[in-house]
Amino acid sequence: MRQVRVGLAQINVTVGDLDGNTQKIIDYLHRARNEGVDIVSFPELAVTGYPPQDLLLKPQFLKDNLACLQEIVKETQHIAAVVGFVDREDDIYNAAAIIHNGKLLGVYHKVYLPNYGVFDENRYFQSGIRNQIFQINDCVLGMNICEDIWYPGGPTTLQALSGAELIINISASPYYVGKPLYREHMISVRAADNVVVVAYNNLVGGQDRLIFDGYSLVVNQAGQVLARGKLFEEDFIVTDINLDDVVRTKLNDSRHRKEVLNLKLSGGPTLPKSVSISPPERITRPVEKKSPPQVNPFLPKVWTFAYNPYKEVYEALALGVRDYVRKNGFSQAVIGLSGGIDSALTAVIAVDAIGGENVLGVSMPGRYSSQASLDDAEQLARNLGIDYKVIPIQTAFDAYLETLAEAFKGTPQGVAEENIQARIRGNILMALSNKFGYLVLTTGNKSELSVGYATLYGDMAGGLAVISDVPKTMVYALAEYRNSVAGYDLIPKSTLMKPPSAELRENQRDMDTLPDYAILDGILHAYVEEDKSLEEIVALGYDRDMVMDIVRRVDGNEYKRQQAPPGLKVTSKAFGPDRRFPITNKYRG
Amino acid sequence: MRQVRVGLAQINVTVGDLDGNTQKIIDYLHRARNEGVDIVSFPELAVTGYPPQDLLLKPQFLKDNLACLQEIVKETQHIAAVVGFVDREDDIYNAAAIIHNGKLLGVYHKVYLPNYGVFDENRYFQSGIRNQIFQINDCVLGMNICEDIWYPGGPTTLQALSGAELIINISASPYYVGKPLYREHMISVRAADNVVVVAYNNLVGGQDRLIFDGYSLVVNQAGQVLARGKLFEEDFIVTDINLDDVVRTKLNDSRHRKEVLNLKLSGGPTLPKSVSISPPERITRPVEKKSPPQVNPFLPKVWTFAYNPYKEVYEALALGVRDYVRKNGFSQAVIGLSGGIDSALTAVIAVDAIGGENVLGVSMPGRYSSQASLDDAEQLARNLGIDYKVIPIQTAFDAYLETLAEAFKGTPQGVAEENIQARIRGNILMALSNKFGYLVLTTGNKSELSVGYATLYGDMAGGLAVISDVPKTMVYALAEYRNSVAGYDLIPKSTLMKPPSAELRENQRDMDTLPDYAILDGILHAYVEEDKSLEEIVALGYDRDMVMDIVRRVDGNEYKRQQAPPGLKVTSKAFGPDRRFPITNKYRG
Repeated sequence: MRQVRVGLAQINVTVGDLDGNTQKIIDYLHRARNEGVDIVSFPELAVTGYPPQDLLLKPQFLKDNLACLQEIVKETQHIAAVVGFVDREDDIYNAAAIIHNGKLLGVYHKVYLPNYGVFDENRYFQSGIRNQIFQINDCVLGMNICEDIWYPGGPTTLQALSGAELIINISASPYYVGKPLYREHMISVRAADNVVVVAYNNLVGGQDRLIFDGYSLVVNQAGQVLARGKLFEEDFIVTDINLDDVVRTKLNDSRHRKEVLNLKLSGGPTLPKSVSISPPERITRPVEKKSPPQVNPFLPKVWTFAYNPYKEVYEALALGVRDYVRKNGFSQAVIGLSGGIDSALTAVIAVDAIGGENVLGVSMPGRYSSQASLDDAEQLARNLGIDYKVIPIQTAFDAYLETLAEAFKGTPQGVAEENIQARIRGNILMALSNKFGYLVLTTGNKSELSVGYATLYGDMAGGLAVISDVPKTMVYALAEYRNSVAGYDLIPKSTLMKPPSAELRENQRDMDTLPDYAILDGILHAYVEEDKSLEEIVALGYDRDMVMDIVRRVDGNEYKRQQAPPGLKVTSKAFGPDRRFPITNKYRG
Repeated sequence: MRQVRVGLAQINVTVGDLDGNTQKIIDYLHRARNEGVDIVSFPELAVTGYPPQDLLLKPQFLKDNLACLQEIVKETQHIAAVVGFVDREDDIYNAAAIIHNGKLLGVYHKVYLPNYGVFDENRYFQSGIRNQIFQINDCVLGMNICEDIWYPGGPTTLQALSGAELIINISASPYYVGKPLYREHMISVRAADNVVVVAYNNLVGGQDRLIFDGYSLVVNQAGQVLARGKLFEEDFIVTDINLDDVVRTKLNDSRHRKEVLNLKLSGGPTLPKSVSISPPERITRPVEKKSPPQVNPFLPKVWTFAYNPYKEVYEALALGVRDYVRKNGFSQAVIGLSGGIDSALTAVIAVDAIGGENVLGVSMPGRYSSQASLDDAEQLARNLGIDYKVIPIQTAFDAYLETLAEAFKGTPQGVAEENIQARIRGNILMALSNKFGYLVLTTGNKSELSVGYATLYGDMAGGLAVISDVPKTMVYALAEYRNSVAGYDLIPKSTLMKPPSAELRENQRDMDTLPDYAILDGILHAYVEEDKSLEEIVALGYDRDMVMDIVRRVDGNEYKRQQAPPGLKVTSKAFGPDRRFPITNKYRG
């Protein structure tokens, strides 16, 4: 029986940390060899981290990355490895090296460079035109990179038609809600369509706004999932693949024959002919004794489970916070606790991410803060066991009013006075950050940020916007999810029940200014994430004046969003590099 | 004599203002017809404004833009026009329509889509593959779009080899210092290389961070400039082109013959064959009487002039401010005047941009402000004739210190206390903005922003960063330039002479923390704009420890820059979308 043992190193690397990433790759190489792995793979651009952005425009960075690859090559005695790095030949390429026994056997260049959504790969790389396949012992393998496998007729198909039985795809595929499942469906169909085993090795970890969810996959030639990597954690996935199964399936499923003939007749892309043969020295690994599988082989293998999108988003956010804090050299975070749902959820996520001992909650009561809110903030801090300070803003607010008395003479109180209070709070948190080294986590949600219901330099002041891509309705769902895991009202029930308010003027409530959040989020989803027109949104059944008002607010607040701290992406379209809008923009529609 | 009168409408359009832009195009069409123009052109994407960014992902926006084009088509009786718009066929294209006498004769699709620097065109458009030429009366013309003409063997060459005698290139080419001259040299060489007349129609105006400088050109087949559009202003450039001159030059310069033969022999790109012939109805225009030219025809036409880069940058900044203010619906601006050079220069630019009656200067003295600085601020305001307010920050500062006394107990005064003062100033300006509708202009320069010598939410708080792409050494030069135009010390001499200081602690001076600005700017240019490595910068003769310190600061302050207000681009690499760096980044080199 021809069998190959594949190991997928689903690792968490850091952008720019060439030495640290290289050491981690080498550690996993050794681990893989110890576990009898024949071929070990690493994520896309594992050497540099992903996305390296304009570091790629520094010649020295490219050189240093190549030197790291040489270090890795030396460590591949008795094992084969597929490693993501930046290749530099006539131009630079997003590349995968295949290395075996201390020798670089070949390099693949990513063909399809994504340049939409959060991606900018045409800014940096030339597209590859090579399409080699490689033989390692008995195994003929093709490799490709991330986007390549999302094209149904792309490199995976050409490599499979050329004889590859195993495709290793190395990826850095960022998360949004539901993406892991969708990706699994796609990989499963791709494997079955091409009658090839797919080992899909994704990156894991947070990088600024992006969260890479891991969830690497090994899928057999029939589209059955043989193994899954953990979500949101480092993992090492070792799988034995029976290559004769691929042959058997191909003899029974002859679609590939027609495809090969079509290609030959059409004069289309040439099938790769040059198959590199690895040195004669075979990789040897311990033989295991196995007991026969216990499942009924006559039933289809179907994976059923209860999917909980809120659990998924929650864990994504915790990873995003943990990695942003850790990779930027912080250990502690400070959060303004208003007693409201947004800051409560942010605090709970932060505690789960970096530990309650590293989180400080600060209540900053002002003239319009309700006692109930202060009680809720304190109760939350007690539930979380975090340090908690009360720093009132009234003295500073009075000082501003006195300072501005002459300039403001004869004007009615309004937004200016409201914002001053929010900005005092921002300044206090930043002062604590400057003095003691806390990272300030902001607490605004996506619904607020969409319509500009937030104060620039006030509640928007901080290093990371934890839930700024979470719509308000999902904020509630995440809070309820987390309370259900805790088994009690970790986030106080009163926080969940009371009507949302910024408490910046007497009896203020969000609903005085904004529609009900269920309505608002429906309009925002249609406008921001789906790019629907005003007419199309009205046709969904929303009130025309309301839609016009919301659309106008979204467009008019782009200037605030462009000064917002980076926010963790968990939806299909987050503000920031994922949605690039002009500030100066007279289009209304 | 075959002659064609070309009119280049160097107009200032606004992104998203489809109706306004269309009306402006129609107005210029009428003006062109009145001036006897045969062919009038408009800038790249004139209908939508440039760059429309993710508005291009809205189907309704694309439809609305096509409807605008139809309005324009109707207005082309007895004239031909080349108009930039977004075409939508099988995909969307950055396109130029050629219209004549109420009919759309053809559409060109931009071939080369820039995706570097500030550009993201691969995010939106498919590349064109058409290469038509068109005949309008006696004139055979090719048209292409912006980036297309920057490729020496691109569409301009193919169109010229196919017989085009006039190339109309419509552009939206953003400014940086020296770019207009460099562009002129390039266009001149391109015209002469291809023995073709080039009419280069650039956009003018500010759009967020970008400034389009105009400076449209008509260059004859010998590379001689026949006409130039104004820098930084709307203009309408009407030029009579003698087409027989092109024929005469081609008979004497037969390089094109060899190129055409090479193309035919090599089987390379096919020369466009289909030449659209315009309807038989001729465009008629008044015949003018001319007096013979007065220059000595035996001497080469050389344009000599005293180039002043500071004048150029200064005027660019004034346009950038004017258009940001105006196009975003503001009429007035407020600036914190510290008495230092940065805020002084910003104020002078603002006054030149929107008028002294629309600018408010605010001095916000604190405990460490010197009397000399306050005097300088007041003197500047008096020189500019602007409204001037003094709003001291001490009361608010004391209130913060009292509020934070317990939290800060036992800690020495430091950066936290310095930043509180800067943030009080930011809050005061924002309060004035919120109350009275001023746009806050920030005053930080590029050198400070590079090394993070600025307070987030403090002096960095505002709507537009006027000089954030101007290095400190250039700040001085611009101030001196402006004073020389004024003919007296408009910016007080003492502001220019005193050592720079943030005045946030006792006897603070920039030079305590930073190297001399001439040294600093040298290192920053090498590191930020040239992407040189630490070793390469040291090799230029700078002190190693100093370079390491500066490089560390630049990398470590990316988080501040990502929350900065948009800053006007005037160098070859500005912070912002022009330089996309990760915040989480462990690379040091």
